[in-house]
Amino acid sequence: MTGELAAIERLRRRLEGPATGEVWIGDDAAVLLPPPPGTHLLLAADTVVEGVHADLSVLGIDDLGWRAVVANLSDVAAMGGTPSHCVVSVAGPVGVDLDRLYDGVSAAATAYRCPVVGGDLVASPVVVVTVAVTGWVAGDPVLRSGARPGDGIWVTGELGAAAAGLRLLRSGAALDGRLCEAHARPRPRLPEGIAARAAGASAMIDVSDGFALDLWRLADASGVGFELDHLPVAAGATLPEAMGGGEDYELVFTAPDPDAVGAAFADLAQPAHVGFCTSRAGTGNLRGSALPRAGWEHQI
Amino acid sequence: MTGELAAIERLRRRLEGPATGEVWIGDDAAVLLPPPPGTHLLLAADTVVEGVHADLSVLGIDDLGWRAVVANLSDVAAMGGTPSHCVVSVAGPVGVDLDRLYDGVSAAATAYRCPVVGGDLVASPVVVVTVAVTGWVAGDPVLRSGARPGDGIWVTGELGAAAAGLRLLRSGAALDGRLCEAHARPRPRLPEGIAARAAGASAMIDVSDGFALDLWRLADASGVGFELDHLPVAAGATLPEAMGGGEDYELVFTAPDPDAVGAAFADLAQPAHVGFCTSRAGTGNLRGSALPRAGWEHQI
Repeated sequence: MTGELAAIERLRRRLEGPATGEVWIGDDAAVLLPPPPGTHLLLAADTVVEGVHADLSVLGIDDLGWRAVVANLSDVAAMGGTPSHCVVSVAGPVGVDLDRLYDGVSAAATAYRCPVVGGDLVASPVVVVTVAVTGWVAGDPVLRSGARPGDGIWVTGELGAAAAGLRLLRSGAALDGRLCEAHARPRPRLPEGIAARAAGASAMIDVSDGFALDLWRLADASGVGFELDHLPVAAGATLPEAMGGGEDYELVFTAPDPDAVGAAFADLAQPAHVGFCTSRAGTGNLRGSALPRAGWEHQI
Repeated sequence: MTGELAAIERLRRRLEGPATGEVWIGDDAAVLLPPPPGTHLLLAADTVVEGVHADLSVLGIDDLGWRAVVANLSDVAAMGGTPSHCVVSVAGPVGVDLDRLYDGVSAAATAYRCPVVGGDLVASPVVVVTVAVTGWVAGDPVLRSGARPGDGIWVTGELGAAAAGLRLLRSGAALDGRLCEAHARPRPRLPEGIAARAAGASAMIDVSDGFALDLWRLADASGVGFELDHLPVAAGATLPEAMGGGEDYELVFTAPDPDAVGAAFADLAQPAHVGFCTSRAGTGNLRGSALPRAGWEHQI
């Protein structure tokens, strides 16, 4: 058992020190330089709960910390934005391994240049980690609601890897390092989000709750339907895992010009063209069959 | 029982709609106009846990929502800043009264002009509400670390009311509306924080964990000691409640010029002058006796 103040001081030493002209952990609020003129400020928050989002019998609590940060970075990626700073609030029981939890938080914050500048640390019967992130985009971000009939639909990578990784971890079967990594340490598609925006993406969303559910959200917000001819299923994953398994954190985007997409992704893996938008709002098919609104939805 | 998506849509209708040029709830991240040029951006987060920060046998879950927002607004007040936007993440069990919780959230957000622009809603065995807030200050904010020997020390109001209110609520004794309100619906001292900064405050902190503990934090961060000759105890509260009871959300600040303080608070209740800072770092007295570092510290 350790007091909150000593723990905060210890955790602060694990994290990056403040940038010039800024005040990070240790005051009532962090003091930050504002984003450059002409930009929009982005703000999002995501919560990860032990036993709900992360099965700690198969994941380390450092992975839970990583995933809480990445869920937020993925939200910034889905706007075509660049992350700036995050605040991390941890609620947990006496004896929770805060150092290991913050190892994962710090690793993600460092890897994606989104330093932890504050947060909270409180007692709770279960581990609940909430991260809020700021970011910026020069000019207009890519919303969910801008897709137009005729726009192509792309996915930035293969689907179902995270769900397949969780299945393998739980089964105790021979582990596939790539799939388990996709579940334990997913990565946000930040360069891909910026490239999609540069390609003139009309709408974008991250696959956090499942490809089918998230594509439906985009289509409904835009007032369009869709026809898919293809789904890039990760090797080792099933079609249901690709359609409904959440937390892949790939991006789905729509755009009018395939050549612009190819050019914008010249230095990245080319996204998979999976179909196109139609004017039939409320109708979405995969090779002629209705795509179910499959995915993860909390019951609360 | 209700699904997350339907709940989000229902809660969105309880909250204020977006400002011109901004995108609030419903996309991956909120899109906000950045703070004015020449300002600093403030960012903070606080978590409130059912049974830890809020005893739901004596408080409504709407009060818990109010308190989660106000804890954050108070952090902005303690920098001399103005709140901009907040994101609210709620983890809770099936059947939790989200509408009533958001009544409290929305009431605080409206009262103090800090609209809810996003957040998260997830399943969890206990209610955990995390709010993150952005704010701004034109020029330099007031930190905890700027107090100098000889500076006076002020408190913006009477102490111990929130702790006394909790005691009354738990005892079932005749309720004192003012004290119970201080516990259930504390208010952030936003005008007072701005006035203190205008008065040339050298350091400031909010009384969230207890006056004595929070004053010690300010003194330690500034490398000063203090001599107190006075403590403004709220009517109905005890001296220990005034010294160690948290969540009063009064502000404690230091400043070199009493006349400037008087002038800056001309349109507000005058703050109480309680003592002065000394050069004896690590030494803090109330009328000649050492002030204990009393207050609320989470064990985690």
